[in-house]
Amino acid sequence: MHQHLIDNISHLIRMSEEEKEWISSKFIAKQFNKGDYFLREGQICREVGFIESGLVRYVITKENGEELTTSFNKELEYTCNYESFLDHSPTKASIQCIEPSVILTISYDDLQALYTHVKEGEKFGRLACEYQYVLAIRQLGSLYKQDPEQRYLQFLETYPDLVQRLPQYYISSFVGVKPPSLSRIRKRLAK
Amino acid sequence: MHQHLIDNISHLIRMSEEEKEWISSKFIAKQFNKGDYFLREGQICREVGFIESGLVRYVITKENGEELTTSFNKELEYTCNYESFLDHSPTKASIQCIEPSVILTISYDDLQALYTHVKEGEKFGRLACEYQYVLAIRQLGSLYKQDPEQRYLQFLETYPDLVQRLPQYYISSFVGVKPPSLSRIRKRLAK
Repeated sequence: MHQHLIDNISHLIRMSEEEKEWISSKFIAKQFNKGDYFLREGQICREVGFIESGLVRYVITKENGEELTTSFNKELEYTCNYESFLDHSPTKASIQCIEPSVILTISYDDLQALYTHVKEGEKFGRLACEYQYVLAIRQLGSLYKQDPEQRYLQFLETYPDLVQRLPQYYISSFVGVKPPSLSRIRKRLAK
Repeated sequence: MHQHLIDNISHLIRMSEEEKEWISSKFIAKQFNKGDYFLREGQICREVGFIESGLVRYVITKENGEELTTSFNKELEYTCNYESFLDHSPTKASIQCIEPSVILTISYDDLQALYTHVKEGEKFGRLACEYQYVLAIRQLGSLYKQDPEQRYLQFLETYPDLVQRLPQYYISSFVGVKPPSLSRIRKRLAK
């Protein structure tokens, strides 16, 4: 049984032992090296992943070729390009493992089956989606309203442990500045 | 019975006649004049609204006092500040009616009751949330990746009928430019 996954779902819904076994059987563990892609821009996202261990970043490539890091997910979080997953359209962003990662994946069809087979399956889907949705609107608000320093502070609040695990240039990209500007922000905040 | 609302929900789930009546009874119709606020920044969002008729915008006020329009909802769509609604925190954005509007509202407690009382209530919640979530990540991708002209084209694609109903300065704010720049973009595209 994928215990970390089942523990995670247990925070949202009640499951019988049989349901736990059934859910666990639908997730397949996949190993990724640092630098491997869970999903590449242009592919159709056909799986939702639960990160058992590791760290991923979401990458958008601008028309001038510049890479932007727009988000992160770490162990015990889900990862997916949900727009592509739901409407089977090509993804506009990649998901890259930036640490060696073990990701438990469930296919689109099996996730739909989970919603109906598990008594509180739909509730799990709703609560998991609500959580992701709130993260997205919080990030939207931050992009519209905050300056880079405030966004860096929000990054520290949202991902308190990641500042140690990420290269500076991923963080500066996420905050929306060049690396030297992030260094200045950090120096200013350290005072 | 609120027929538009029930028709809308019927696209997502099956309901018995009794369930339709029950759901309908939980929504209260509220009238708003042009310029009225459905929700003001700093308030706690305690209702989800279904816009029976009218049009709203989401407004963020920057620290320098500048107002930014970040999104729109029109008739037959839902409106809510979901982050505030879920965790009962003060909203960071306002929702303002920019046409006379009739909004059917359901309270937090009644929506939770809907999830459990209606057989496919949780499924409705999941599908409605998925829809909103995809809109949010699409907008995030647009903000990170697109230039103002591309964002304007995406605005036209997402809200094809709103270009006639909105003042120019709301659209330019949404696209992220000053009104004169939007005029130049429109002239360029008209060629």
